[in-house]
Amino acid sequence: MHIAQLGEQRVIKALLRPWPASSRDVPVGPGDDCAMIRSRPGAAWVVTTDQLIEGTHFDWSWSTPAQLGRRAGAVTLSDIAAMGGIPRYLLVSLGLPPRTSVAVVTRFYGGLRQLLARHKVQLIGGDTAAARRFHAVMVAIGEVEPRLAVTRSGARPGDLLMVTGTLGDAIAGLRLLRRGGRARRAASARALIRRQLTPTPRLEAGRALGAHRLATAMLDLSDGLMIDVNRLCQASGAGATLLIDQLPISPSLAAYGRRTNQDPIRLALAGGEDYELLFTVRPADEVRCIRLLRRLRLPCRRIGTIDRPAADRTPSGPAVTVMTRDGRRQSLRSFIATQRLRSFEHFRAPARRGRP
Amino acid sequence: MHIAQLGEQRVIKALLRPWPASSRDVPVGPGDDCAMIRSRPGAAWVVTTDQLIEGTHFDWSWSTPAQLGRRAGAVTLSDIAAMGGIPRYLLVSLGLPPRTSVAVVTRFYGGLRQLLARHKVQLIGGDTAAARRFHAVMVAIGEVEPRLAVTRSGARPGDLLMVTGTLGDAIAGLRLLRRGGRARRAASARALIRRQLTPTPRLEAGRALGAHRLATAMLDLSDGLMIDVNRLCQASGAGATLLIDQLPISPSLAAYGRRTNQDPIRLALAGGEDYELLFTVRPADEVRCIRLLRRLRLPCRRIGTIDRPAADRTPSGPAVTVMTRDGRRQSLRSFIATQRLRSFEHFRAPARRGRP
Repeated sequence: MHIAQLGEQRVIKALLRPWPASSRDVPVGPGDDCAMIRSRPGAAWVVTTDQLIEGTHFDWSWSTPAQLGRRAGAVTLSDIAAMGGIPRYLLVSLGLPPRTSVAVVTRFYGGLRQLLARHKVQLIGGDTAAARRFHAVMVAIGEVEPRLAVTRSGARPGDLLMVTGTLGDAIAGLRLLRRGGRARRAASARALIRRQLTPTPRLEAGRALGAHRLATAMLDLSDGLMIDVNRLCQASGAGATLLIDQLPISPSLAAYGRRTNQDPIRLALAGGEDYELLFTVRPADEVRCIRLLRRLRLPCRRIGTIDRPAADRTPSGPAVTVMTRDGRRQSLRSFIATQRLRSFEHFRAPARRGRP
Repeated sequence: MHIAQLGEQRVIKALLRPWPASSRDVPVGPGDDCAMIRSRPGAAWVVTTDQLIEGTHFDWSWSTPAQLGRRAGAVTLSDIAAMGGIPRYLLVSLGLPPRTSVAVVTRFYGGLRQLLARHKVQLIGGDTAAARRFHAVMVAIGEVEPRLAVTRSGARPGDLLMVTGTLGDAIAGLRLLRRGGRARRAASARALIRRQLTPTPRLEAGRALGAHRLATAMLDLSDGLMIDVNRLCQASGAGATLLIDQLPISPSLAAYGRRTNQDPIRLALAGGEDYELLFTVRPADEVRCIRLLRRLRLPCRRIGTIDRPAADRTPSGPAVTVMTRDGRRQSLRSFIATQRLRSFEHFRAPARRGRP
């Protein structure tokens, strides 16, 4: 059997089975947004790794080197945000085709430096080696007080499911980039393209939700809501009901949907790379949470609730139920099937993000 | 100008220029074997990253997945050894062609796990993504007391230049692997091949040299002596005299040299991936140092001395002088030119390690 038949999640799961999930000095091991390492009493490091691979995550025909450098920093720091941590250090390893122009590499570092400077993150190391195609592999190290860190596993039945910002913009931006032509010129199209090319790590929001002990569980939306809500539920041993009509849609995405005759809700559900935060709060904390994020100028919306694990829970994750405005309920799995949604998970999907 | 014209060292140098080399909380920044981060008074983390790329560092026709996993761990922990640190945690990110068999990935992790278990290192995270060719990017985190850490920059004129183990074995092993056929069957050939496929990180030796405050500067020999001795000199602002006839040659390499009519000294000088430690000691410490390593069953030999920086020091590094048995002196640069030695630096060499 090859990787593409198994799918990324199951590959990772199978590989990590022999490794301990946590230990005394590593309270959070593989499988969360970051691993956590105790450093001294009351302090810990959070560590995460992420990669951008030519043909898989980006295409030089639609991304400049500076944009790619900025994005490399952003997607990696986003994992630190999802733990409620403060990013401090970054390492980046590049695989470079020998004929890569030096200017490409300089501009990549320029974009990365800009992003890191904004968040006061130091580049402390890296490596370059010859490769057939470009890849960048980043490692970010951040700080967190263990009692304020937010993992994926703390959601409890009754908690509310919340999300920052808007969903589906990045996938729409990607489609615009791939198609090219006149469709990209509208202001709304440019806004969607920006979401794809230069995502924003929600560092202040993630930190505030942790520091005020509001989020009971949290992750960043990298692979799309329908995959990531399952991850949160699975880690927490819970189910969820998703209020499908409550998914936050930007005016730009709504306009794109009208122009292209696509349902924005479907894009919000299946599209990846929005790098918004998906988190849970106790019902009593909903108002405090919305106010806190409003002070950070980041909208936040309730999109569902955490349930008891469903009876028809399967090995691929606890069942998530989808509820429409008219009160009809359907399992997420059958909803996906009837809507013919295709996720952006690695290996599984026949062609993902810019692969030729 | 493209990367291949500039060479890896200059690429890295140019890229890192805008970043601070060190700061209050990062006493050692980019450019050494590891970066060092202060964690609490008297304690620090050392962090390093390394990559293995299909076609650049290995070829599936001569490496099994388990060997590659073991090597991935070894080459990364070798950098921790070179700082005098104790490795604790590892993250690994894989780029996988979608048709990679699951067994390949499982065996890669199996080999890696074996190596990590031996050194009590925990795998704490990673990532997998689709790629055109296989790559593995590792990050290792270790511990060190800052006052016992050994950087590349502490060598002073008069210090002795020392090396552990034997040199040139790994490049001979690589040549045997590439050629295939009957030549591989001899016991000496198999020993050389093992040095290429499954290098040993010199963790105990590196730690002991740091803990006993014997090494004044240290690095691991990944790219070959003639490149790495220059790095040590450059970081220390010093020159060196290399006793070319003193380079430690294994009986296996001597036999290989006789069979193939190649000079083992040339292989020892130009060949990379031996992962032995190159370090400097004060003359008064030579005997203690040799005894210490003998207790660890690792031979160690004096191969030169550290000089004042030469007058003809160039931007590409302080001059290293080569001295032969009969007392003739020649700059390393002209020695390389007359011997037509070709280094294994990335990008620069027309074809490196297994590239088709």
